[in-house]
Amino acid sequence: MSTLAQKEIRMAATSLGSSSAQGLPSNEGDDVERECSRKPDQKPLKHYGVGDPSTMVSSSSPHLSSRGSINKWFWDSFEGIQRTCQMDEYDEDKNPNGIINLSISENKLCLDLLTRRLSQSDMLWVEPSLLQYTDWRGHAFLREEVARFLSFYCKSPAPLKPDNVLVLNGSISVFSALATVLCEVGEAFLIPAPFYGSITRHVHRYGSVRLVSVHLDSEVTGMETRPFQLTVEKLEMAFQGAKSEGVKVKGLILINPHNPLGDVYSVEELQGYLDFAKRHELHVIMDEVYMLSVFEKSIEYHSVLSLERLPDPQRTHVMWAPSKDFGMSGVRFSTLYTENQDVATAVASLCCCHSLSGLVQYQMAQLFRDRDWIDQVFLPENHARLKAAHTYVSEELRALGIPFLSRGAGFFIWANLGKYLPEATFDQELLLWRRFLDNRVLLSCGKAFECKEPGWFRLIFSDRIHRLRLGMQRIRQVLEGESQVAADAPSCQTQEPRGPGSHYED
Amino acid sequence: MSTLAQKEIRMAATSLGSSSAQGLPSNEGDDVERECSRKPDQKPLKHYGVGDPSTMVSSSSPHLSSRGSINKWFWDSFEGIQRTCQMDEYDEDKNPNGIINLSISENKLCLDLLTRRLSQSDMLWVEPSLLQYTDWRGHAFLREEVARFLSFYCKSPAPLKPDNVLVLNGSISVFSALATVLCEVGEAFLIPAPFYGSITRHVHRYGSVRLVSVHLDSEVTGMETRPFQLTVEKLEMAFQGAKSEGVKVKGLILINPHNPLGDVYSVEELQGYLDFAKRHELHVIMDEVYMLSVFEKSIEYHSVLSLERLPDPQRTHVMWAPSKDFGMSGVRFSTLYTENQDVATAVASLCCCHSLSGLVQYQMAQLFRDRDWIDQVFLPENHARLKAAHTYVSEELRALGIPFLSRGAGFFIWANLGKYLPEATFDQELLLWRRFLDNRVLLSCGKAFECKEPGWFRLIFSDRIHRLRLGMQRIRQVLEGESQVAADAPSCQTQEPRGPGSHYED
Repeated sequence: MSTLAQKEIRMAATSLGSSSAQGLPSNEGDDVERECSRKPDQKPLKHYGVGDPSTMVSSSSPHLSSRGSINKWFWDSFEGIQRTCQMDEYDEDKNPNGIINLSISENKLCLDLLTRRLSQSDMLWVEPSLLQYTDWRGHAFLREEVARFLSFYCKSPAPLKPDNVLVLNGSISVFSALATVLCEVGEAFLIPAPFYGSITRHVHRYGSVRLVSVHLDSEVTGMETRPFQLTVEKLEMAFQGAKSEGVKVKGLILINPHNPLGDVYSVEELQGYLDFAKRHELHVIMDEVYMLSVFEKSIEYHSVLSLERLPDPQRTHVMWAPSKDFGMSGVRFSTLYTENQDVATAVASLCCCHSLSGLVQYQMAQLFRDRDWIDQVFLPENHARLKAAHTYVSEELRALGIPFLSRGAGFFIWANLGKYLPEATFDQELLLWRRFLDNRVLLSCGKAFECKEPGWFRLIFSDRIHRLRLGMQRIRQVLEGESQVAADAPSCQTQEPRGPGSHYED
Repeated sequence: MSTLAQKEIRMAATSLGSSSAQGLPSNEGDDVERECSRKPDQKPLKHYGVGDPSTMVSSSSPHLSSRGSINKWFWDSFEGIQRTCQMDEYDEDKNPNGIINLSISENKLCLDLLTRRLSQSDMLWVEPSLLQYTDWRGHAFLREEVARFLSFYCKSPAPLKPDNVLVLNGSISVFSALATVLCEVGEAFLIPAPFYGSITRHVHRYGSVRLVSVHLDSEVTGMETRPFQLTVEKLEMAFQGAKSEGVKVKGLILINPHNPLGDVYSVEELQGYLDFAKRHELHVIMDEVYMLSVFEKSIEYHSVLSLERLPDPQRTHVMWAPSKDFGMSGVRFSTLYTENQDVATAVASLCCCHSLSGLVQYQMAQLFRDRDWIDQVFLPENHARLKAAHTYVSEELRALGIPFLSRGAGFFIWANLGKYLPEATFDQELLLWRRFLDNRVLLSCGKAFECKEPGWFRLIFSDRIHRLRLGMQRIRQVLEGESQVAADAPSCQTQEPRGPGSHYED
């Protein structure tokens, strides 16, 4: 029996006011290699949706501005469930019936390595300059180290310049700052969907900027080679569609490796997307925070910074952070690389709201320059552990006959549980999500990621094996029960409050 | 000869578009005890000014939104000079002709104590939970420690509650978050002027909120007992004045101890200001970041949290940070205490943009719980050093016959150099400021702090004695030359770009 109070589950609809996604029948199949069957081309009903969180807030406080009320609503709707889960988290000894949380995109597989490295005595270095005000963009020694680090790991054709580097306290801050300096209130960024849902809030909190979803399909049509493939044609359709609704689109957000799909874009794909953006004078925000989490050796990753020639370097802005790749989301550290000095300066001005301790800046520089540890110890071990965990969850899903995207990057598996829904609706998706939670395992459902097909879920696999085992066991229990319920076509709980997001993403 | 390029000095007018301050004759006098002479009551021409930074930006970038352009302008106008000074900073051995910077409100007197304490082995503690996502408001262990710390040092009648504590990465972030959640775009806070000028930018960067200055006079009139005294009458006049101009005022910012005046409010004064705010349903943001920097034993400090009964607890929000009191502005740490759960929740939602490393959160908790070190080592020594430095600069000013406010709190002396201006204008004030800089000493001038009388300057004295000595020597050189120039009524350099601010304040 769940200890979660109903009121704590009153989660807001995660579509955030987007044009309602079409309840297209989900594509099911036992052949996981095929993942999703190819179907003849068919015209989707609507290929984009414009999100507007401000339309979701019904009540306001006499003490808050409209912006304050939206932010309060963000917290009430998306933080509540995670905080409740945190307080009731599974612990082998202390809370064996606690919740297994497979919804937060964190890498918990290498905390031992990290803890050991960060505990070494070179990490405690205090000198007066670190305790005083400095350049808001970050200490010079750190920006030099970041430039060297990115030049090497992004394989840039020429050394990256420290002057183009800004350091902020996490990628949420980078989104917040870029949204504010690139867009007026109410303007928008294009983003392929599904995408990790919290970006919607990151660009809206301070920026009041909206997202236009470029809806991708699980069905493979035309020239496509994989499910949920992003094409220039889809970008174009969404851009024109938003334009026809009077929405001013100022940029395109690309996530590579992609969260939650795990996709890694080829050079040709990247080039196509960037050319599209250039044609429409759109800024491109490249989110590359999983750059070093490509654990499948056969996959070749291409940072946008590795390209010989960027189509529009003045409108290309690249984010990287150690949060995911080094499993240290609690350290609050992110970098922005941009050649555009106007953008760099405007973000620099906001950096005083996003600055981080000089002591942390020193620690990060130490970490980045320890290439032996990174290359010989951390990365190989991290990739091996990610691969093992991915293999375990993949095999469990195969055993259940669940189709999923089998990629070799990131911490997540994007799985189609559509066959467990009695009807292909988001209400049913939410019911299933709720049944998982009642059985003490928390996942993220597709609706939270603006997926337009009900039934998709994201599972985080970057956790220790005993927790994964228990999590998968609880999922299996629900699905076996659920299969039976589905056969009975239940009418229960249709008033259940709606869809969860994974707020901790950044 | 200054190495500063002219273009780097192109500093924006720091009035930020306020109603132009009246060039009232400054009040001079040799008797520093009297500070400023009492004059018969006289009606000021205008007792308030509404600042609007957005009116100051003339050029915009094709790549930036209007908000981006304002932020770029903030950086170009206010950071340039500080960064140039930083690169050319005085160093006894390496750069003896470098600039002595007495414009940044930092306490450099106890960096040895701080460095020693923070280097102790208990400060390097790494455990997995510190490396992972946590409550955006701050780890629970830290908020408990902050509540205990503030209960003790603020002398609260009842223990403060950890649930009312939020931890952010610096006070700039607290201003930014409060401005956004309390005000709509274009609304305003009242603030007594002079005030440290960077608040103007803190509430505007993300919040697009304006400040209405409540202009205080150096002249002591009516029932007043000291220069620049804040009275409820002046608050009322400014509030009504702004209202009559159609400006919606949502709150009042109070700084106690005051920067740059050094004033410490009595309980009766505090009560009066809070009652005024309650009458008009204004939020009160209490900036108490110099709370532990009252170095004169005879002065009794009263935190607003020590009051037996707050007039409007739901609209009273208190900021404190160790940045000033512990001389660690580079650690980026600030706290907000509010009983208003709507405000706390809305700010909590923004906290994901203002979060700080778990490792720093641990360090700060360690520091706050080390009461022996704080009470036996740090505070007594810090106060003694502040007092000695204050005494030195005071005596130098007295020797020069310069009137100034002699207070026993903070890091600054507010001095009237009006007698060195050939005319009582802000252009002349700026010329004097520029001559200081040419002679390698950087101060903040009153215009940057919205002072309505030309000729006032803020000197930071919380620096080591050899730097203070050299700084005072350079100031004296200018003033002695300046006195002569003043007698000659010069016509030079009237095209000099306008007034500097001290951007590093928070």
